[in-house]
Amino acid sequence: MKLEQTQTGFTLSLNGRVILEHSDASPAIFVGYGQERMDMYRGNFKIEDYVIERRPLSHAQIDGDRISLSDVAGQPPRLILTVAEDTIKLDATDPKLNRLWVRIKADDDEHVWGGGEQMSYFDMRGRRFPLWTSEPGVGRDPTSEITFKANVKDKAGGDYYNTNYPQPTYVSSALYALHVETTAYSVFDFRQKAFHEIEVWAIPERLELFAAPTFVELVEVLSSRFGRQPPLPDWVYNGAIIGLKDGANSFSRLETIRSAGVELSALWCEDWVGLRQTSFGARLFWDWQANEARYPGLKEKIAELDKSGIRFLGYVNPYLCVDGPLFKIADDAGYFATDSAGKTALVDFGEFDCGVVDFTNEAAAEWFAEEIIGRNMLDYGLSGWMADFGEYLPIDITLSNGIDAKLMHNAWPTLWAQVNAKAVASRGKTGDALFFMRAGFTGVQQHCPLLWGGDQSVDFSRHDGLVTVICGALSSGLLGNAYHHSDIGGYTSLFGNVRTPELMMRWAEMAAFTPVMRTHEGNRPRENIQIDQNAEVLSHFARMTRVYRHLAPYLKSLSAQAVDRGLPVQRPLFLHYQNDRRTYTIQDAYLYGADMLVAPVWEASKDARSIYLPQADRWVHVWTGECFEGGAEVQISAPLGSPPVFYREGCRDEQLFKGLRSI
Amino acid sequence: MKLEQTQTGFTLSLNGRVILEHSDASPAIFVGYGQERMDMYRGNFKIEDYVIERRPLSHAQIDGDRISLSDVAGQPPRLILTVAEDTIKLDATDPKLNRLWVRIKADDDEHVWGGGEQMSYFDMRGRRFPLWTSEPGVGRDPTSEITFKANVKDKAGGDYYNTNYPQPTYVSSALYALHVETTAYSVFDFRQKAFHEIEVWAIPERLELFAAPTFVELVEVLSSRFGRQPPLPDWVYNGAIIGLKDGANSFSRLETIRSAGVELSALWCEDWVGLRQTSFGARLFWDWQANEARYPGLKEKIAELDKSGIRFLGYVNPYLCVDGPLFKIADDAGYFATDSAGKTALVDFGEFDCGVVDFTNEAAAEWFAEEIIGRNMLDYGLSGWMADFGEYLPIDITLSNGIDAKLMHNAWPTLWAQVNAKAVASRGKTGDALFFMRAGFTGVQQHCPLLWGGDQSVDFSRHDGLVTVICGALSSGLLGNAYHHSDIGGYTSLFGNVRTPELMMRWAEMAAFTPVMRTHEGNRPRENIQIDQNAEVLSHFARMTRVYRHLAPYLKSLSAQAVDRGLPVQRPLFLHYQNDRRTYTIQDAYLYGADMLVAPVWEASKDARSIYLPQADRWVHVWTGECFEGGAEVQISAPLGSPPVFYREGCRDEQLFKGLRSI
Repeated sequence: MKLEQTQTGFTLSLNGRVILEHSDASPAIFVGYGQERMDMYRGNFKIEDYVIERRPLSHAQIDGDRISLSDVAGQPPRLILTVAEDTIKLDATDPKLNRLWVRIKADDDEHVWGGGEQMSYFDMRGRRFPLWTSEPGVGRDPTSEITFKANVKDKAGGDYYNTNYPQPTYVSSALYALHVETTAYSVFDFRQKAFHEIEVWAIPERLELFAAPTFVELVEVLSSRFGRQPPLPDWVYNGAIIGLKDGANSFSRLETIRSAGVELSALWCEDWVGLRQTSFGARLFWDWQANEARYPGLKEKIAELDKSGIRFLGYVNPYLCVDGPLFKIADDAGYFATDSAGKTALVDFGEFDCGVVDFTNEAAAEWFAEEIIGRNMLDYGLSGWMADFGEYLPIDITLSNGIDAKLMHNAWPTLWAQVNAKAVASRGKTGDALFFMRAGFTGVQQHCPLLWGGDQSVDFSRHDGLVTVICGALSSGLLGNAYHHSDIGGYTSLFGNVRTPELMMRWAEMAAFTPVMRTHEGNRPRENIQIDQNAEVLSHFARMTRVYRHLAPYLKSLSAQAVDRGLPVQRPLFLHYQNDRRTYTIQDAYLYGADMLVAPVWEASKDARSIYLPQADRWVHVWTGECFEGGAEVQISAPLGSPPVFYREGCRDEQLFKGLRSI
Repeated sequence: MKLEQTQTGFTLSLNGRVILEHSDASPAIFVGYGQERMDMYRGNFKIEDYVIERRPLSHAQIDGDRISLSDVAGQPPRLILTVAEDTIKLDATDPKLNRLWVRIKADDDEHVWGGGEQMSYFDMRGRRFPLWTSEPGVGRDPTSEITFKANVKDKAGGDYYNTNYPQPTYVSSALYALHVETTAYSVFDFRQKAFHEIEVWAIPERLELFAAPTFVELVEVLSSRFGRQPPLPDWVYNGAIIGLKDGANSFSRLETIRSAGVELSALWCEDWVGLRQTSFGARLFWDWQANEARYPGLKEKIAELDKSGIRFLGYVNPYLCVDGPLFKIADDAGYFATDSAGKTALVDFGEFDCGVVDFTNEAAAEWFAEEIIGRNMLDYGLSGWMADFGEYLPIDITLSNGIDAKLMHNAWPTLWAQVNAKAVASRGKTGDALFFMRAGFTGVQQHCPLLWGGDQSVDFSRHDGLVTVICGALSSGLLGNAYHHSDIGGYTSLFGNVRTPELMMRWAEMAAFTPVMRTHEGNRPRENIQIDQNAEVLSHFARMTRVYRHLAPYLKSLSAQAVDRGLPVQRPLFLHYQNDRRTYTIQDAYLYGADMLVAPVWEASKDARSIYLPQADRWVHVWTGECFEGGAEVQISAPLGSPPVFYREGCRDEQLFKGLRSI
């Protein structure tokens, strides 16, 4: 970066682009104090700030690479910036400061992407994004009936910015990226024309900047920074992971599914730990070990499945219920976070209380990794699991490392990923055992081998339906999360909103062109259609698993690109077409690697959709072979079973792609 | 007020109570800049602020009665306070400042009331109140289905603080009142324990403070400050004002009503100007003169009615529709506010456009008062009218006085009241012609003889039903609005919410103990029950008009108290029981003068309610004569027709009150 003194301030440029422009009259840095009010209800937060002071640090004194910022000339500095190659270190000399606002110079026509895994808006320009890991919300649209009802019932409706995986990092269309190294609550505000405003409820350690001549290289750099995932396990390419939570019945249902021609890689039973009956219905029993009553002889069953080439996956989360045997062990050992009275903090998850295993306590993290994930899960025969939650760290508990829980809240998903990854590594299973998470934050990339898009509603809605999964894959993918997938058919069924066969089929059509195909029974299996309950759905699904399996060689090559270069499997169109600005705002289609373009049908009752094909290439429609010149919007027929998918004419895998027509 | 210098600041006390306590370490005054975003949709506003700077003026320099405030010692002052007997004048030396925050010292157990006419919360402590005149909202409760639907359909749902009549004035239980002299957008934030924070989007002219040894005297002082209404017209005591908008049918319906034994004072036909058909249904024709087609021979009809002792009332608002004859006259004369291009600004009111008569143009105000209200209404024979609106001044229009419309928006209701009052005075009809307004702001007291509580929903809901009218009467009454009343049966019927006979009767029972009884057909007359459509409702109503008329001598004495001392007719219990702190938070009952206590049944399907009776008096239940010792909560039977009403044992009008039992 280049620091230049100006008349009354300075400019800071990265590869010739001005990032910070600060003067007496138009300051870029503001500091102050605030008193936040944060209320959590089952992972949903109500957050308000009372800003007591916000003032520009108008006066800048430059001394080599140091910028000393004070209110006015002659006053002692309150904040010191130290500029290096690609970071700006921040040091507050006033220890009371707990708010920072930085204005990053922006262009009128600039686009910005990232912010972790964003589900509603890929291009974040024009909106404000609080970055705080939480439940994603139900409906996520305050003008929808579902969100209204979820808000009234459980404060759970959410809005466009709610996400399990926020990250204070953005990529700009001006070919740079900016990351704020902090775990504090922060906000990216992209509503202004002339600047982006970054707000942090702490003085962050540093801002990091990244520049590259191309988007591809920029993504590579970010992936190096945040960590890279191992390759997809080989077994995944065999077909779909079937989610069933039907106790011992799950095995016979799997057999039915297999005999219908479904290509299988694994059976996933989240109820492997047993169930608990509550007034809300059956819930999992949060004590992480096989439940003999619900799955008699599970260890042997797993071994049998394995012989037929099918893996078995389970479920775990970072809590332990008070009425399970593991709770007592952890409690006796002092592994739980404590409350203000120094007692084990208990969190109500709906008619049952749990302790929060304190991962800042090394012994607790080690115990969880070794005894629970290592012994009870991996040694038992599990090849993977949903590593659920990570967003719920209460903000009023006391942690072993002594850091304010408000500052650890965002850090928790990464700690949780780390515990899982460590357990997997301890058994030499990295790149074989596959766990998947919805929660994330900076650094989760390094530990979590696979994201899942969270709990979509079982519908086609704009802010919580099928289409949001694409946005989640693209945004997280830019920041070094190469692998993304989702619950086929969605998860959340509330207030009478239930799956349709059409939704199941459209979702499966999309999933066939993602790293992992996995079904989920959803939160209310008995009220929602399952893949084995409708002949049309099942046969359509079987065909899609064959499509997925057919593309395995191509997907393997994409996985290799992820490992080598950190490129995501699902990519925004602009990643490979950076000169074609019409691609910059597309969030309902993606490149599947460089050579395929997938434009899922994400609305109900459509048998066609339009899609813009990028310039300078010709695109072949996989089902008809029809060829289209790029640089134009095309309207494509897309009956069920024929999702709009194209490949790039003349690409390496053309023959493989042509083979899709006969599946 | 007493100004005292302290170590690093000052304290300012009023009658021994510290109001401002300012020091370097704990400043009370903050200033800054903000950029607001205000969007209006049919009187509903979405308002957001981007606070660019907010900083304490930590350093105070005292010089006699002047306090010069600067950021730090040695810097030039940015704000100067000049302290007088009961005002603090504010002068900004920095012209860029457009935000002020002042912290008024508060006690833990302090209560605050006022804020104009508040409909949801009488005691404002614990909440934040933006003060900006607007539509009041439909449902006014974001957790209600009606508010949700109104928001989605028309951005019209509202919240607890939305009101037609805000006023930056509060009364504290510490026996003082504070008023901010400004028309800018402001916020009273009562959420903090140690202080109240006043926020103004401008540097206001001054803060005014009032203190008195009793609440009664404090209210008298406030009434002197803000203006006092004339006595109620004598004709009002004759009975109810019947609202009908049925064209010529209105007269025969009135006859039916009269023959059912209803005591009448006036017929009110808002459709006297004729109708316009829109896709939303019939709307009034916004051109303010009698409509011969809808009311043939109206002038003669009015004269006939008058002979039988019944007055005739109409309707007017400050707009003129483009397709009416008055528009052209006003437009030719340049009486309308203009848009940014200098053309007549047109406002869409739902399939018809209107001009905004610019009351800052003296000639326009004079024309409206003389030609429209004077000639077309008073001279024509009208004895009163609903003077509707006042809240809709668009914030992007240009006004004749050159002041920013954002600063005139809150001032508009008072200007509108002034035009009406001037017209009435020009015909010597002050105290006889009765117009009623829902919109208000500081100073409306001086011009508007009667408030009406706005557009309640036709239900018993907590935030938009019958009970909110009491809150409106009590809050506005403390600030010098002696007379309040409401639409019997409510007004707003949307999304299938319709009046019940029970609601009509409960509302009438309350209205009998208010200054004016007036019915309204509501926004959807055909879908909602009317008083003449149900024998039980009609006979109940007739009896309530007899109750009202029976109490006329008492009401006259209350009107005299209003004229002499500015005491409101409806009073909070604490006004006369200031040592009984249990009365401080009661907002669903009121004193009707000093000697009656009225506790309306405001919930559906109840035939009893509980009410706290103040200490040190004995209270006689009017319908049974049963006597209760004050200082306790009592449960009172209250079937339809017997609203919980008490009188003070031994009071002057005991005989009159006893007479109620035989009505």
